[in-house]
Amino acid sequence: MALEPDQASIDSITLFVALLSSCIVIGHLLEKNRWFNESITALAIGLCTGIVILFTTEGRSSRILVFDEELFFIYLLPPIIFNAGFQVKKKQFFRNFAMIILFGAVGTLISFVIVSIGTMQLFKKLDIGFLDIGDYLALGTIFSATDSVCTLQVLNQDETPLLYSVVFGEGVVNDATSIVLFNAIQKFDLSHITPGIFMKFMGNFLYLFITSTLLGVGVGLISAYIIKKLYMGRHSTDREVALMILMAYLSYMMAELFSLSSILTVFFCGIVMSHYTWHNVTESSRITTKHAFATLSFISEIFIFLYVGMDALDIEKWNVVSKSPGTSVGVSSILLGLVLVGRAASVFPLSFISNLFKRTERDKFTLKQQVTIWWAGLMRGSVSVALAYNQFTRSGHTQLRGNAIMITSTITVVLFSTVVFGLLTKPLIRLLLPSKNLSNTASSDSLDPFPPKPMADLPLIANGQIADDEAGNNIPRPISLEEGNDNIPRPTSLRMLLATPANTVHYFWRKFDDSVMRPMFGGRGFAPVIPGSPLEPLLH
Amino acid sequence: MALEPDQASIDSITLFVALLSSCIVIGHLLEKNRWFNESITALAIGLCTGIVILFTTEGRSSRILVFDEELFFIYLLPPIIFNAGFQVKKKQFFRNFAMIILFGAVGTLISFVIVSIGTMQLFKKLDIGFLDIGDYLALGTIFSATDSVCTLQVLNQDETPLLYSVVFGEGVVNDATSIVLFNAIQKFDLSHITPGIFMKFMGNFLYLFITSTLLGVGVGLISAYIIKKLYMGRHSTDREVALMILMAYLSYMMAELFSLSSILTVFFCGIVMSHYTWHNVTESSRITTKHAFATLSFISEIFIFLYVGMDALDIEKWNVVSKSPGTSVGVSSILLGLVLVGRAASVFPLSFISNLFKRTERDKFTLKQQVTIWWAGLMRGSVSVALAYNQFTRSGHTQLRGNAIMITSTITVVLFSTVVFGLLTKPLIRLLLPSKNLSNTASSDSLDPFPPKPMADLPLIANGQIADDEAGNNIPRPISLEEGNDNIPRPTSLRMLLATPANTVHYFWRKFDDSVMRPMFGGRGFAPVIPGSPLEPLLH
Repeated sequence: MALEPDQASIDSITLFVALLSSCIVIGHLLEKNRWFNESITALAIGLCTGIVILFTTEGRSSRILVFDEELFFIYLLPPIIFNAGFQVKKKQFFRNFAMIILFGAVGTLISFVIVSIGTMQLFKKLDIGFLDIGDYLALGTIFSATDSVCTLQVLNQDETPLLYSVVFGEGVVNDATSIVLFNAIQKFDLSHITPGIFMKFMGNFLYLFITSTLLGVGVGLISAYIIKKLYMGRHSTDREVALMILMAYLSYMMAELFSLSSILTVFFCGIVMSHYTWHNVTESSRITTKHAFATLSFISEIFIFLYVGMDALDIEKWNVVSKSPGTSVGVSSILLGLVLVGRAASVFPLSFISNLFKRTERDKFTLKQQVTIWWAGLMRGSVSVALAYNQFTRSGHTQLRGNAIMITSTITVVLFSTVVFGLLTKPLIRLLLPSKNLSNTASSDSLDPFPPKPMADLPLIANGQIADDEAGNNIPRPISLEEGNDNIPRPTSLRMLLATPANTVHYFWRKFDDSVMRPMFGGRGFAPVIPGSPLEPLLH
Repeated sequence: MALEPDQASIDSITLFVALLSSCIVIGHLLEKNRWFNESITALAIGLCTGIVILFTTEGRSSRILVFDEELFFIYLLPPIIFNAGFQVKKKQFFRNFAMIILFGAVGTLISFVIVSIGTMQLFKKLDIGFLDIGDYLALGTIFSATDSVCTLQVLNQDETPLLYSVVFGEGVVNDATSIVLFNAIQKFDLSHITPGIFMKFMGNFLYLFITSTLLGVGVGLISAYIIKKLYMGRHSTDREVALMILMAYLSYMMAELFSLSSILTVFFCGIVMSHYTWHNVTESSRITTKHAFATLSFISEIFIFLYVGMDALDIEKWNVVSKSPGTSVGVSSILLGLVLVGRAASVFPLSFISNLFKRTERDKFTLKQQVTIWWAGLMRGSVSVALAYNQFTRSGHTQLRGNAIMITSTITVVLFSTVVFGLLTKPLIRLLLPSKNLSNTASSDSLDPFPPKPMADLPLIANGQIADDEAGNNIPRPISLEEGNDNIPRPTSLRMLLATPANTVHYFWRKFDDSVMRPMFGGRGFAPVIPGSPLEPLLH
């Protein structure tokens, strides 16, 4: 008896682990049915479990863990975001960097303004409790945080690299922007906005963006330098892997400690680690980190969806709301409408602007691609739920009428958008981007030697990264061959530099990377030769 | 501000992660100095941090996390024990199974009896607070739980396989026995022992042993069956790895839920998973799980040592004790003496008994080997600390004189045995088993292409397991070649069966394994062929 820590927590952990396992198995079985995916499966299983708990406790409770912000922001979010940075195709990401920032930051701001003003105007007509200006602005950020997991599952990184990298990169920048905005709103008194306060607000926003990025890059470079200098791999793969995990998490926690945007920090830490640190470790460490990070991220994602599904039925909140179901439906519908409009108001104008800067017709976004980008940002997910809990449960409970309505409406919007929009994503993209049809039908053949990569692998893994490396055989190569064959031409004149600023920056960056960064921090072609690496016999 | 969950927990997590990273780096740097290892480094860093915190808080506190049994038993211990089972050399382990049980279970019981009776007699003369019979019996189990990590770091699995597997296996069985005993003592009223109660006690003990083992084996087999049937690997490495992690943890939590011995359960789950499940997954999954489990275990171990070091300076406990330093020194010395005597009273007689059953001189334990086994069980570690906290802080604080003395004495014994005995282990073993000298001196040569495996890899990894598998190229082979070349001869007569019972059992088990178990659950030679496995191109 005595040694068992706390029976309630053992019960809930056991149940959660069992449910997570069954989500993976059921998600796998449903994979052939190309409408479903693990997110929706987890949501559904969470809902079912909630119902079962509701019946067994005779209506008193539907959940076993209270939604815990600390759990979400300290343990579940970091692996997801770090893995996103670690597995991103860096070349595509940086080539489209300007566009990603445009869609991710400016787009989020547009959506934020529209949702805030929209709710301020439309909620007046509904009988909801008191909401102050801070609440409306918070609603703007809560419903600007997109969840593009569903879309990334069906977009193909090789067929539509531009679209994929924009949707993917925008998703991360969007999360960071929303959370930074949300924090800024809670910090500043925005009840009477003066130009001075606005400038300070924007300054704070930029400061957070830049310092967070620098912190992530810094920690990533330190990890690369330590592992390169100490030849950890010669002694132990486990030590290398442990150090990478710990340093990545350290970057996140340091950003939290200094009140920076930890999402941006850990994302850039992931990018730097995959560019430098990953190349300094042994072959086994590379395989282990690649898959271990992806697995941690995968488990966290399922956990979040499972949790949101289970939490959706929490009885206390619905009790308050059930007295006026009409109001609740109204609020949810308004929010969904504003999400649709806000996203449209940012994607289509911004696509138009970005098309103006494209020289060739091939690089421009077609209308179908614009619709895809628009659709990709319609789902709302766990970040929205976490922010809503933070804003509307600060008094510790959801008894206040306004707060209860906002929480239940957030959950309704998240469930509706994830399930309905999510289920429609696959057919829609098949319709809009018909080149996908071939690989979809081929996948039913179970003997296909190269099946299409499923969701857990697809969004994030830079295919062929490891295979490329074998070719290099760890021999120092001064020529950088970063993920691709097309060499960027050397800019010959100032005119050309002005015409293709992004490519030029990329060119100079690569020169700097080859001559200064890689010799110092390692990286492809500059990694120390590691004798006795466990996998070496396989490679020759 | 608002989004940061709890500033205090962010501070402490950041500090812990930073300290863990520095332990790895410093432990790596100190490796050439063959007296130190990561455990002692972590203890030392923990102590130093404790002193710094003590000064900065002006003597109010020396620690940032209160010792949390739930953290220890639910999060830190499972990966360590699972990894021990997962990486154990199964053939050696099962060949010496009888001896391991003899030393692990019977030896622990002898040590338990001696420490309990010893403290009961000797403590009477000292002026300590009231301790009841349950406390004395608890002390017996607390100081019977050994921590053989230090010894395993210096023993060589290839040079002394028998010694290594006995010390290693005994360590795990010993932990399980101590914890089962401890739980039984808290559950039963042992103030007046009748034969009936004693029989019930022993029955309970055996029941826990058997059911816990069966649960672990069951969950392991289910995981093997699921992964074999569903061909998870064809779709996603991450899904396979996630499922293995979750099922392993599920076995531990289910044992906790049913009040079984979770340590035994997760240990046997690890053995079954490495024997069946591991062979059913893709090549990348094998490398990933092998290193990911070892890394998790490595991080948990350092965390525990760091924590114990930091907790050792907790001011509240020492305040009570400091009024009578003589008593505390006396108690600690008595406990240390009883540990030495209790261990000797179990190792030497049991070695004598086990030698009686050995036919050849080569298989018998020499005196030097007996001294090594004796020494290997002198260190006391985190399990002792956790049990002591459980027994003596049940009222929530350590203000009671008797309780405070017991806690501080436990910490003193743990620190002293780990640091002093730990530092002496390397020289002692070099003296007792001189064949080690060669590899020790060779390790100073930094260009040595095959350096001796360091601590983190050495105890647990079955060398060459993966290399063996490449040779098999995933083609189904009905002949089992489990970790070794020497085939066990078929027993030809009943006389031979009686003479070599262990080998015979092993022979029939392998027959059964090949004809029933492996075709059903997969395993070496019976794993499904996985096309498109990421590493395949490398292997041909």
